[in-house]
Amino acid sequence: MKERKYAISPKRDEDYSQWYQEVIKAADLAENSPVRGCMVIKPWGFSIWENIKKELDIRFKETGHKNAYFPLFIPISFLEKEAEHVEGFAKECAVVTHHRLEKGKNGGLVPAGELEEPLVIRPTSETIIGAMFSKWVQSYRDLPLLINQWANIVRWELRTRMFLRTTEFLWQEGHTVHATKEEAVEETLTMLNVYSNFMENNMAMPVIKGRKTDNEKFPGADISYSVEAMMQDRKALQAGTSHFLGQNFAKASDIKFLDKDEKLKYAYTTSWGVSTRLIGCLIMVHSDDDGLVLPPKLSPLHIVILPVVPNDKFKNKVFEYCDKIKKQLSDITYNNSSLEVFVDKSEIPGGRKKWDWVKKGVPIRLEIGPKEMEANEITLSRRDKSPYENSSLKSGEFIKNAQKILTKIQNSLYDKADKLLKDNTKTIDSKEEFYDFFTPRNPEKPEIHGGFVHAYFRGDEEIEKKIQEELNVSIRCIPLDEENIKEEGKCLFTGKPTRQKVIFGKAY
Amino acid sequence: MKERKYAISPKRDEDYSQWYQEVIKAADLAENSPVRGCMVIKPWGFSIWENIKKELDIRFKETGHKNAYFPLFIPISFLEKEAEHVEGFAKECAVVTHHRLEKGKNGGLVPAGELEEPLVIRPTSETIIGAMFSKWVQSYRDLPLLINQWANIVRWELRTRMFLRTTEFLWQEGHTVHATKEEAVEETLTMLNVYSNFMENNMAMPVIKGRKTDNEKFPGADISYSVEAMMQDRKALQAGTSHFLGQNFAKASDIKFLDKDEKLKYAYTTSWGVSTRLIGCLIMVHSDDDGLVLPPKLSPLHIVILPVVPNDKFKNKVFEYCDKIKKQLSDITYNNSSLEVFVDKSEIPGGRKKWDWVKKGVPIRLEIGPKEMEANEITLSRRDKSPYENSSLKSGEFIKNAQKILTKIQNSLYDKADKLLKDNTKTIDSKEEFYDFFTPRNPEKPEIHGGFVHAYFRGDEEIEKKIQEELNVSIRCIPLDEENIKEEGKCLFTGKPTRQKVIFGKAY
Repeated sequence: MKERKYAISPKRDEDYSQWYQEVIKAADLAENSPVRGCMVIKPWGFSIWENIKKELDIRFKETGHKNAYFPLFIPISFLEKEAEHVEGFAKECAVVTHHRLEKGKNGGLVPAGELEEPLVIRPTSETIIGAMFSKWVQSYRDLPLLINQWANIVRWELRTRMFLRTTEFLWQEGHTVHATKEEAVEETLTMLNVYSNFMENNMAMPVIKGRKTDNEKFPGADISYSVEAMMQDRKALQAGTSHFLGQNFAKASDIKFLDKDEKLKYAYTTSWGVSTRLIGCLIMVHSDDDGLVLPPKLSPLHIVILPVVPNDKFKNKVFEYCDKIKKQLSDITYNNSSLEVFVDKSEIPGGRKKWDWVKKGVPIRLEIGPKEMEANEITLSRRDKSPYENSSLKSGEFIKNAQKILTKIQNSLYDKADKLLKDNTKTIDSKEEFYDFFTPRNPEKPEIHGGFVHAYFRGDEEIEKKIQEELNVSIRCIPLDEENIKEEGKCLFTGKPTRQKVIFGKAY
Repeated sequence: MKERKYAISPKRDEDYSQWYQEVIKAADLAENSPVRGCMVIKPWGFSIWENIKKELDIRFKETGHKNAYFPLFIPISFLEKEAEHVEGFAKECAVVTHHRLEKGKNGGLVPAGELEEPLVIRPTSETIIGAMFSKWVQSYRDLPLLINQWANIVRWELRTRMFLRTTEFLWQEGHTVHATKEEAVEETLTMLNVYSNFMENNMAMPVIKGRKTDNEKFPGADISYSVEAMMQDRKALQAGTSHFLGQNFAKASDIKFLDKDEKLKYAYTTSWGVSTRLIGCLIMVHSDDDGLVLPPKLSPLHIVILPVVPNDKFKNKVFEYCDKIKKQLSDITYNNSSLEVFVDKSEIPGGRKKWDWVKKGVPIRLEIGPKEMEANEITLSRRDKSPYENSSLKSGEFIKNAQKILTKIQNSLYDKADKLLKDNTKTIDSKEEFYDFFTPRNPEKPEIHGGFVHAYFRGDEEIEKKIQEELNVSIRCIPLDEENIKEEGKCLFTGKPTRQKVIFGKAY
């Protein structure tokens, strides 16, 4: 049997990394810009970000946070206030040194008006927000202070990849201040749960919540938590982080408050964020060899209607009928708003038009032509199934069941991703097996390997560094639901007894 | 009779500029940051921006525009492509010259990793977006291309004032490409109308739509249009602009398309924008000597309920009753979403609590205590009336009429602003009267003067420059509805015949 054609070339198992770029291109999500490492997010890609933003923003507000906006610029002296923090970010900062341009000797423009103190473009905002918080927080009555910011961020990355790692990216950063350690830790975990809830319910993506090792934590944090997801190449992607910052930034920025006991105390702070990286994550978890696959709860369109017009005689009638179906569908509520339906009346030939929408990942396609009109039917295709598969349904029947079908698609995407994660996570208790698991099966495709390892590990930083060097493997996290487990086991590497189980993987 | 107390000091007629700063402070809208010229937009101020954004975004999408995101950075060589454009912005650009920090000789961090070509932080995005458009536009089938971006912008202003003129600000910038001049001009005017419609309907602010003189137009535009509003000090504020860019940027960025006639042609482009300046505008149009006054259609809260608790015995009962009223109100639709109602249960003393909400500008305050509960009444105060004025209403009566009352407030704000504009716009036909009109009545308060002058003006640039120098007066616009008027008149300054009428004013 001849293999069917696929819309994306190369396929995932041929060249995963190239496949990823091709999916982005085919769905018209984004493209590289003339500015090194910066991408342009095109309308289809940006509308996915708008949906991510909308969903998260509701959750942030429900948990008591308010949005605000802080400066893009951070004076160098602010960055220097927290030692680990500056160490972590100094190597990749865009630095503003001048405030105008003037004609140079060769006629071209050159920087002029040198600043007394250079400014860094925010790689994250703990220090500049901390400076404001130290003014806003005076008494225990001002606490907790729960702020979020949607903003652009710049980190001068050496190697960039669209959505996953770009010089400029969009994100949200939550910053909160609390009177007690307990409350701040609780906030850190609450937001981690907000993220995992969003990722599982809306992105249809199972995640592992866990604590980062000291090696991997945020520069300046006491504890970092993350949500980790498995991509289809079985590599791990850190999808979001939530940090308990202890009193480190409170001390650096002088955030003090007069407590009920009339004593002046340093506060405890947290920060947490997700970024446009989530779009890369979404692509790599669900998409297939025909292009992007969008979970209905984040897709800018739920249903695209493709009118089938054999000749111009039928055109208006078919269009009218399609518009009628669209109108009826638009009255239906899905995920707390109206169904988004689009009738594609463009003059693109039918085959290409269908494949354009397949590649864009819209959950449901309806084909409606004179034949369907007469029978009062629609031809239904689901993006979670083969593009060659379809079924006929009475229009009324479809409209009645549209919500249910979308829910089925959402669930089937989750189940598939969950199966991938479970099938490729292995409990391992020997070093030999560990090395074997992470050694590529095929030397020509070094990116394909075992997946995640779930193992007892005592926490030796030397070993952590060694496996990073030798296998490019790191500890993704210490899963939350397994911290302080009762059953003692033997450390995978040292054989010594430990109660700590971790997840190992190769990371993006 | 002794004058009543006001919440803001100084009052508008004592020191308008200081009054403005105090309103911002009293409403907790924003504050200056440690970074020169950059402000922090605090939650109450930011939620007004979120509402502005939401309303405009709906209108942009309704008129066929899609959101996208382009890089923060612009290579100097891009800026240089359009001569007038670079001339207009080179003097106030933040320039990135390095991409990391390293330890300097004295131990502090200094810029390192010099860039081959310095990057400018976008002062506007015509050139970087143009570079992308030149790749996206190939054929007439790709047109029109209708894109909008919500982004932060940096212009290194010498003198800054919160919201009105800050080094960094938030805005939207529309950028569109068209096959013909007619279509591009139509787009420019459509967006001008979108702005004026939003400002009149949502901001409750009458505006004058008009064309800018060559002196005042956007660097690189063929025609600039603006919407101009009158502030309470009778100065003009340019609230939004819409530019027909002709083929200037198409030529600079090489945006060409193959037309139906198989010929390769340069396209026509437009750009249009409004910014966080609108919040400054909102403040200066409606606020009074008791603080911020928000039009209901943009207020983050429509109704604040203030429980009156004479002693702890009543607390829970009153709170419960207030929550019940809130719930009933939240079911009411206003301006296409639910009424936003907040019960302020904080332990702030009643008087201060009331004044806090007056200063924040919430349209309706309800006081509910045991007395009201028993009579099933509420005590109603409207922000468009004196804070000492209130009336009692049966709760049911109020709930039934809440929408209507908000509409009344919205309209009364508009009417007041419209009266200000009309009362202070004068038709003048002599130079002497013109100079008199713009000469401050009181030398101690140079900012108070006549307002807008509506006059025949032939368009002599020398005269334009002279009145700018002598009176600080400029031509705000040539009102759209008076371009090419039939009736000929005599130029105010030269006495020569002309059909052109313009609006003069002092501008922010």
